[in-house]
Formats: sequence, structure tokens, C-alpha cells
Amino acid sequence: MMKTVRAWDVSTFINRPALGILPPENFSERLKESLLSVAPKGLPQVMTMACGSCSNENAFKLIFMWYRNKERGRNNVTKEELESCMINQPPGCPDYAMLSFMGGFHGRTFGCLATTHSKAIHKLDIPSLDWPIAPFPRLKYPLEDFVKENQQEEARCLEEVEDLIVKYRKKKKIVAGIIIEPIQSEGGDNHASDDFFRKLRDIARKHGCAFLVDEVQTGGGCTGKFWAHEHWGLDDPADVVTFSKKMMTGGFFHKEEFRPNAPYRIFNTWLGDPSKNLLLAEVIRVIKREDLINNAAHAGKALLTGLLDLQARYPHLISRVRGRGTFCSFDTPNDATRNKLITIARNKGVVLGGCGDRSIRFRPTLIFKDHHAHLFLNIFSDILANFK
Amino acid sequence: MMKTVRAWDVSTFINRPALGILPPENFSERLKESLLSVAPKGLPQVMTMACGSCSNENAFKLIFMWYRNKERGRNNVTKEELESCMINQPPGCPDYAMLSFMGGFHGRTFGCLATTHSKAIHKLDIPSLDWPIAPFPRLKYPLEDFVKENQQEEARCLEEVEDLIVKYRKKKKIVAGIIIEPIQSEGGDNHASDDFFRKLRDIARKHGCAFLVDEVQTGGGCTGKFWAHEHWGLDDPADVVTFSKKMMTGGFFHKEEFRPNAPYRIFNTWLGDPSKNLLLAEVIRVIKREDLINNAAHAGKALLTGLLDLQARYPHLISRVRGRGTFCSFDTPNDATRNKLITIARNKGVVLGGCGDRSIRFRPTLIFKDHHAHLFLNIFSDILANFK
Repeated sequence: MMKTVRAWDVSTFINRPALGILPPENFSERLKESLLSVAPKGLPQVMTMACGSCSNENAFKLIFMWYRNKERGRNNVTKEELESCMINQPPGCPDYAMLSFMGGFHGRTFGCLATTHSKAIHKLDIPSLDWPIAPFPRLKYPLEDFVKENQQEEARCLEEVEDLIVKYRKKKKIVAGIIIEPIQSEGGDNHASDDFFRKLRDIARKHGCAFLVDEVQTGGGCTGKFWAHEHWGLDDPADVVTFSKKMMTGGFFHKEEFRPNAPYRIFNTWLGDPSKNLLLAEVIRVIKREDLINNAAHAGKALLTGLLDLQARYPHLISRVRGRGTFCSFDTPNDATRNKLITIARNKGVVLGGCGDRSIRFRPTLIFKDHHAHLFLNIFSDILANFK
Repeated sequence: MMKTVRAWDVSTFINRPALGILPPENFSERLKESLLSVAPKGLPQVMTMACGSCSNENAFKLIFMWYRNKERGRNNVTKEELESCMINQPPGCPDYAMLSFMGGFHGRTFGCLATTHSKAIHKLDIPSLDWPIAPFPRLKYPLEDFVKENQQEEARCLEEVEDLIVKYRKKKKIVAGIIIEPIQSEGGDNHASDDFFRKLRDIARKHGCAFLVDEVQTGGGCTGKFWAHEHWGLDDPADVVTFSKKMMTGGFFHKEEFRPNAPYRIFNTWLGDPSKNLLLAEVIRVIKREDLINNAAHAGKALLTGLLDLQARYPHLISRVRGRGTFCSFDTPNDATRNKLITIARNKGVVLGGCGDRSIRFRPTLIFKDHHAHLFLNIFSDILANFK
């Protein structure tokens, strides 16, 4: 790679511009080659950010500004708003909220943390906000054996979302947006049906709330589509989609109508780092050239099929096998067994991750192929056979 | 530079590690060459972060954890704490607060924004927290003509700080920390005396609050010391010092006793970017080799002396000339005049910045020397002579 860098690229790697004020000359062109070339349908606007937490924090701000401007209509900002916001008080700092889901993870800064409910250690000792928290469906597996139960469970959660919106409005706290992960990752790789997400999107629209999909962990192709929410087949796209991690840079896509009504309302000094967009452009080129999204779908099927087979053979060790693309996981009987399995696997050269309280999750790279799946399944099958 | 990069460096520029889990092999060595080589006295611990806002957000978290652990003593975390924190409620999410100052700027994410009070546009429409806000001294210039008035003004502000801590405790909201900039930058380049900051540090200690100095804008040498708070001559160091901007990476230094009591309590995926530490190591090498801190002190004196001369000649256009090192500024009669002066200067090739509602601020690079000051002063003198 070093031999092919252009002068502009070298400058990008050794300088750190204040991106919002003084972007490199052809930065917008570079965005077309990188982030904008994979923008989710219906979301033509993009902002870059330095990390996943900042992406969600600023997406919340975008949503609150959009909501307030809707309420304001053609009225101007009042003197009272301008003065009260300086001392953290309404009406300038309105009593708005983001609705989130139990088990969700959206980051660790203060705004994000108020929507994160995956592990106590993330939240302990940190003051928070009284924002509504809805239950996330707890599906029973195998899905085909629990169709009716799972439908009821999802309906229960959706009903609770609507109840919370109404209940919070009654106490003058307005739910301006709903944030959700396509697959709850830190919280235990919890899935819901495409139908659940479509209905949730409808509820958001019905109540005038923005619909924010957090693809920080699911985005980038591993689920078999570039964005996991593309599986849902939404008629009306999400309003905002946040990303980070595999995208090399943080940031978010959004609909035109969410564009801030004045400059510097969504801003910080660096807004990420343009050198990461260069890396991302290369990554996207390779993804396309090697057809890696379809590869993830294919290899994921091999992995999932193998895991289902292991589940049938070792039901006392493996349950609730689930996944989309290579974004697979299963449950173990308890925390201790889970951690022991992870350690044994590591000693055999396989790095596995834990999530939730007793799940093991797979997050292989996009070049993970069927034969890697079989390699893993052979090793893991031995581990399970000898597990005491 | 490209010719001298080592293999490790190239790898650092083209990879993006999850720094907290899988740091590059000799990352801790590299920290010694970069951040730790300029650690403020008494603060041997460092965390890197991706931006200034994340640095302050995580510094607040560090302070809240430290405070809660102090309260907890030898008691264990209770089941009630672990459960209540998951739904954003006390006692798990305690009603703690950071005390900040009117006119301060500490970033734009939710926690930071609750301590930012510089411009309404930063805060409008964003829900906030009820945290105490103290007045920052409004000094009269020239300082030597208003010694008594300024002492009284600073005493008034310090008294208000103590009153707020007591008042908030009465309503069960505990001030766990105080955050302050050595020079309020966005808020208008507002200075206070070294004595003010020493007394504020004493108040923090007296009430058991952590003392957090935000050097995001002042750090890196421009004030004539590497850290602006080194001018104060504190007996007991600050507890936490945050940085970003000129340091190429965000992060914070802290005292040993503020070290989190468990891993992953202060954490995110990237924790900044190790390639920026490489750049910082080079920057620090140049600063030392070229004696750029003393240069900033010296060139700053030339700039300030020249500005005082212009103030004497054009008192209807320039007032309240102030500065430390090259971190200088002055007031203009109003917003319109300020913006007009900035535009005329830009058209003559001089980039000036505005801050507060009518100030012009200088933020030259560290290689700005006396002759640059004279070059500027000549141009600006002409501008003022011809200003209509």
C-alpha cells in the first residue's frame, strides 16, 4: 500500500484537520467513494464522528432539534428559550427523551448511557436521565416451534412501547425518538422478527417520534447485507442510522428533513479523522471486488447449520442457536460454562466472545469463508465432546 | 517523513485496533514517549480518548465512580444498586452533579453540554441536567487599576461556589466534582487570577469534590507553559486534567486514587487512535528541540505589548487586552465591529477568530515568533487607522 499513496493521502495521514471548518480540499469527493457509496436507501445525508458513542449522542441531538422545530412550526426561537437553555432549564432545554430497550447497548457517554441497559457495570455510579425503557422481545427457540408464543411476545413489547410514549407524555416528558439495535449485541445477541421492526417503525411514525437504528455493531456486511436493517424491507426508511467500528469512522446517515437548520449545531473540532475514510474506501472496494457481503451470507449459513447440528448433539451445552450472516450466537447453561468454553477454545487458537449473561457470539471478519466455519466446527465439536 | 517510518508505524497508520483490549505491542512504550512525557506534576495516570467531549464525559464518570467508592467505604455494591442502575434510577445511578461556570465550554455531548454555558446555539433544544452553575469572575482591565474590585469579584464567585455546593446537597444532589477551564475560551477568553484558582482548588478539597481542569483548548504550550494550570503553582495538583486538540488525541491525566477499581469501567472500542500518539511524539520532540514553550512565552509578550499599544491608540476599538503566552485576546465595542475587523483582516491574509460576544482571540501555532507578532501588529495597526 505504501507505494501507491498519493501526496494527498500522505497529508491526510499526518495532519489532523478541524474537519467541520477546514476539511481537506476533496473531502466531499472522498465521502462519495467511501461512506456515501454505502448509504442506506433514503438516507442521503451523512455526518462523520470520532466514535460510536459520539455518533449516538449527536444523532439524539439531531432528533431533538428536529422535534423542537416541528413543534415550533413557523414561530421563531423565543428570548425565554435562549436564556433558559444557558442554565439547563426548559423551555430552552426541553424535557425530551429517547425511548430505548432493556438489554440495548448504545454507548457509554451520558446521553448514550441513559439508553444503554445491557450490564450493570456500564451504568453503576453514573447519574442518568428518566427516559422510558421498553422490554425487548425474548424469543423462544427453535423459532418454528414457537411461532405463536413469539408473536405474542413481540406484540406485548410493542404495546409497552406505545404505553410508555403515552405515559411519558402525560408527565410532560416527550418521547422525541426511539433507538434500537437490529440485533441487541452486548445485551446477548437478542433477535426480533423483521415484522417486529416494521411495526415498531410504524409506531414511531404514528406518534411523531424519530426512528433511530443503531448499526454500530451490526453494520458493515457481517449480517449478509451491508446494513442489518435492510433485512426488514421497510417501506419508509429509518430516520437516522448510526455506525462506527467496522466502518473505521463513527457517524450517521439521516433523511434530508433531519438536516440541522443552522451550521455548527451538530459539530465538534475533529468530527472523526479523514484518514479513516481513506481506509474505509479501500475496505469497501475489497468488499465489492470479492463479493464479501454474499460471502458473509453464505459462510454464515454454513456456520449456523453446523451450530444447529452441535445443538442437536449437545443440548445440555448449547441452546438458542441464532444468527444472521456470520453474526451468530448461542446460549450456554450459565456464565461459568460459557467462560470455560471460551478459555478452552482460546487455548486451541479460536477467539470467541461472550455477550449477555451466558451467550457466546461470533464476529468473524468478512473474509471468513465456509471452510473457516468447518474448521471451527471441527475444533468446537471436539471441545464439546470432551467437555466435563 | 515517509522515508523514516518503521514497519510498526506503518501498521499503526493502516490499522485501527480496539485499543483497550488489543493495543499494539509496544503501545505503553509509545505512551511514555508521547503523553506521559508531558504529564502534569502529580498525575501519573493517563487514558486516551477520541475527542475532547469524550475526554470530559469519561472524566466525569471517573469522578462519579471515585466519589461513590469514597461514600461506599468498605461496603460492597448492593443488589439494589445493581438493579436500579439498569433502569437509570438511584441508588445505582446516584443524583451526583458536576459544578461548572457560566461562560464555560466543555463539549457538546450530553454530560459535557450540561456543563457548557458559552453560547445558546450550543444548548438550544437539547434536554439537560439540573447541575449547579457558578458565576465566573468578570475582571476589569487594566488589572493594575482594579486590584480591589477584581479581588472582590473573585471572592463573590468563590462564595457562590460554596453556596451552590451546600444548596445542592440540601436538595440531595451531591456535587462530586468541579470543572473549570484555566482560561474560558469559547466563552470569551475570560481570565481569573492564579489566586482564584488556588482558592477554588482549596474549596474543592474542603467539600470533598474532585477538581477537574479542562485543558482541551489551553493545553499544549501556547500559554507559555505546557499546561496553563501550571501557572497557578498549586500545592495539591488538580485531580483530573483533560486534553484534546493540539495534543492530537483526546484523553485525560489523573491521580492514582482516581484509577477505576475494575477494568472496563472507563472504556470504549477505540479509545482514540494510536497513530495520533506517534504524531504527538514527533510534535513533543520538536517542541523540546526548538524550545517552543519559551518561544510562546516570549512571542506572546511581544504580541501583548503591541496590543496594549494599539489599545492606547484606539481605545474606541480595542479594550480589555489580555493574554498568557500567545493565548491573547481583546474586546471590540460590539459583535458587528468584531466581525467586520475579522473580515478585513482575513482579506489582508490574517486569520483571526472570534469568541464570546465581542472578543477577538489569537491562537497562533507554537512556531509563531516575535517577528510574526510585529508583522501582524503592523497590518492590524493599518486596519485600525483606516477603520470606519
